[in-house]
Amino acid sequence: MNLIGKALIAQGGGPTAVINQSLVGAVLEARKYTQITKVFGAIKGIEGILDENFLDLSQETFYNLERVAKTPSAALQSTRVKPTDKDCEKIVEVFRKHNIRYFFYIGGNDSSYTISIINDYAKANEYDLKAIHIPKTIDNDLVLNDHTPGFASAASFVAQTFLGVNLDTRALNGVYIGVVMGRHAGFLTAASSVAIKYPDDGPHLIYIPERPFSVTIFLEDVHRIYKQYGRCVIAVSEGIQDANGTPIVSKLMKQVEKDDHGNVQLSGNGALGDMLANLIKQKLPISRVRADTLGYMQRSFVGCTSIIDQQEAREVGERAVQFAICNEEGGSVTIERNGEYSVDYVLKPLHLIAGLTKHMPDEFINAEGNHITEQFKYYIRPLLGFDFPEIHLLRAPKVEGVVVDF
Amino acid sequence: MNLIGKALIAQGGGPTAVINQSLVGAVLEARKYTQITKVFGAIKGIEGILDENFLDLSQETFYNLERVAKTPSAALQSTRVKPTDKDCEKIVEVFRKHNIRYFFYIGGNDSSYTISIINDYAKANEYDLKAIHIPKTIDNDLVLNDHTPGFASAASFVAQTFLGVNLDTRALNGVYIGVVMGRHAGFLTAASSVAIKYPDDGPHLIYIPERPFSVTIFLEDVHRIYKQYGRCVIAVSEGIQDANGTPIVSKLMKQVEKDDHGNVQLSGNGALGDMLANLIKQKLPISRVRADTLGYMQRSFVGCTSIIDQQEAREVGERAVQFAICNEEGGSVTIERNGEYSVDYVLKPLHLIAGLTKHMPDEFINAEGNHITEQFKYYIRPLLGFDFPEIHLLRAPKVEGVVVDF
Repeated sequence: MNLIGKALIAQGGGPTAVINQSLVGAVLEARKYTQITKVFGAIKGIEGILDENFLDLSQETFYNLERVAKTPSAALQSTRVKPTDKDCEKIVEVFRKHNIRYFFYIGGNDSSYTISIINDYAKANEYDLKAIHIPKTIDNDLVLNDHTPGFASAASFVAQTFLGVNLDTRALNGVYIGVVMGRHAGFLTAASSVAIKYPDDGPHLIYIPERPFSVTIFLEDVHRIYKQYGRCVIAVSEGIQDANGTPIVSKLMKQVEKDDHGNVQLSGNGALGDMLANLIKQKLPISRVRADTLGYMQRSFVGCTSIIDQQEAREVGERAVQFAICNEEGGSVTIERNGEYSVDYVLKPLHLIAGLTKHMPDEFINAEGNHITEQFKYYIRPLLGFDFPEIHLLRAPKVEGVVVDF
Repeated sequence: MNLIGKALIAQGGGPTAVINQSLVGAVLEARKYTQITKVFGAIKGIEGILDENFLDLSQETFYNLERVAKTPSAALQSTRVKPTDKDCEKIVEVFRKHNIRYFFYIGGNDSSYTISIINDYAKANEYDLKAIHIPKTIDNDLVLNDHTPGFASAASFVAQTFLGVNLDTRALNGVYIGVVMGRHAGFLTAASSVAIKYPDDGPHLIYIPERPFSVTIFLEDVHRIYKQYGRCVIAVSEGIQDANGTPIVSKLMKQVEKDDHGNVQLSGNGALGDMLANLIKQKLPISRVRADTLGYMQRSFVGCTSIIDQQEAREVGERAVQFAICNEEGGSVTIERNGEYSVDYVLKPLHLIAGLTKHMPDEFINAEGNHITEQFKYYIRPLLGFDFPEIHLLRAPKVEGVVVDF
């Protein structure tokens, strides 16, 4: 089937530091093929398709595209809107009207679900369409992917944050809590472990949504570490849950905000960190307790993207177009690790990915559920790139007694 | 006066990303002089002196010192302890016992005050001592300094944060509030303005401690900007005050924590950001409101130091030792801007610096008190270095109507 028509590219969900690499990878590749008559970009994902709000990306210079590729956050803007059945009908109408035959949607779980229902709707309505999902999520929670574009750069930000705050807490003591993004998957929080170099480095405790969070055990953990080192650095996922699966943060917020996909707002406030800090101040004999919520810097910070992440994000965009041209069926581009360290890009059926969540595997989590294993360190290290910074402590000997001048 | 004896170096107050450059600058320079018989480092500032807890920095390799120089946060650890009269007596005793004749203290306002009282006490007790204050503070609030080492790297972190969240808010709309460190001086918050490139870029509003903060005017400002752009990015100092000079955050905290210098704890919690976000949600017709508190990353983040800051922090340490060797009196090393862009290091009397706070000058603040002026941008730009990142938006034309395939 040699489909001739326009390509449409859109971006959905939370932006990442490298999502524009995927956009530019797809745009530049799509502009090479005669089957693709124009390359359009939809403004604000699904919303832009429904409103026919398109940019003509055939008319964009190579140099500006290369500069945009290195700019974080969705250049086409984004959306959290989930299309209804009626929306899908409208979307296929819009595609027909503009002769859009190639559809590339860069996004995470929710976006992969969106693209799969549009794809099904096109099929049911006998509209020939190649719909390809280009993976993206800092949460690293897409199934069938070794990891996802966007994760490594966010992981680098988190790891560099903990590199720094570990040293800061070493200088001034006390307890430091850093709250990391991650609704259901603890990968990003676990990335804080990259900060550990010297034996007494933090984070000393890592709490993730994959293990139930108990306030009692948490306080015991903190007290034990604090007595041992005179300080305690803690990484905690915003999505930690109690034994019943209720997010700890939703117990705290007066008004819970939800998006179209039913997700509770976890980010954009300091409630969880502040609550945990107050708990420690009240229950333990520790006065200096600080909590930071790492916030939106994690997904949008300009200056600490991973080189590997930049390259892979570019490649999944490029491969998406190649798959669309060379394959009969659409699907989702996935990343498979096939060496130490190398990857391959494989197109998988959308229904195997859409709406599913990958969690941290058991072998990445320690027995106590309050830290990670060496296996996780082995998994994450190559993703951060060769230029990930290192820290160094003084090794000068202590002065014993009074040293006489020579 | 050719003083012969040991040199002692210590670090005080909040760490910065480049404070170890000053340490290493001083150590390497001090190791060159025969008058200086040994170079000691005190662990935890004043506390380490009182406890005679010293490292022998004469026994540290050049390469490790160079690596430590690039590592953020105080390698000798730090303290917020302010010496009492009795402590000063003890400190001079310790100096006498170890024949410490050169004392270098790297720190901000509070540390400069500490060194000036130790200096006075040594004089009063006829103990020959050269005491030099090496400037350091991310707040940029030392008087008689064009700027202070540590500020530019923290400013770079803040500016890169706002570069990113401005794009993030462009992608998903709504209101974003970023709370920036700064107790009395708004310099660091004002650095967020470096993120502005395109005419509609944020931060659209910047609130600093130098101007009274009114909730009513704040809400009017936010509403106006939001109606204009469909989004609003706000930078706000943790130290904003009402018209009576009461910190807004201290109205919120149940328990106010103070250090030895009487400073209220402002950082290490999300209270101010959350309060402002809730205000907007309650009073304005805007649903997506997010607040981040930039937290300890600002002073300890590894990966985005300013090259200029690294160099100057090294130089003030080096010059401190040269001043100690070549000058009769101790003092405080200050930075004077003498060109576009060049600086000179000048030794000033301690009593002109100690315990005083520099504020943002009026010409850096706009008439409404909710943003900065072009003069501030001119002031700050060279401090961030030539490699400060740039962002780029798409410039492709909008698609009008249905474009027929060629």
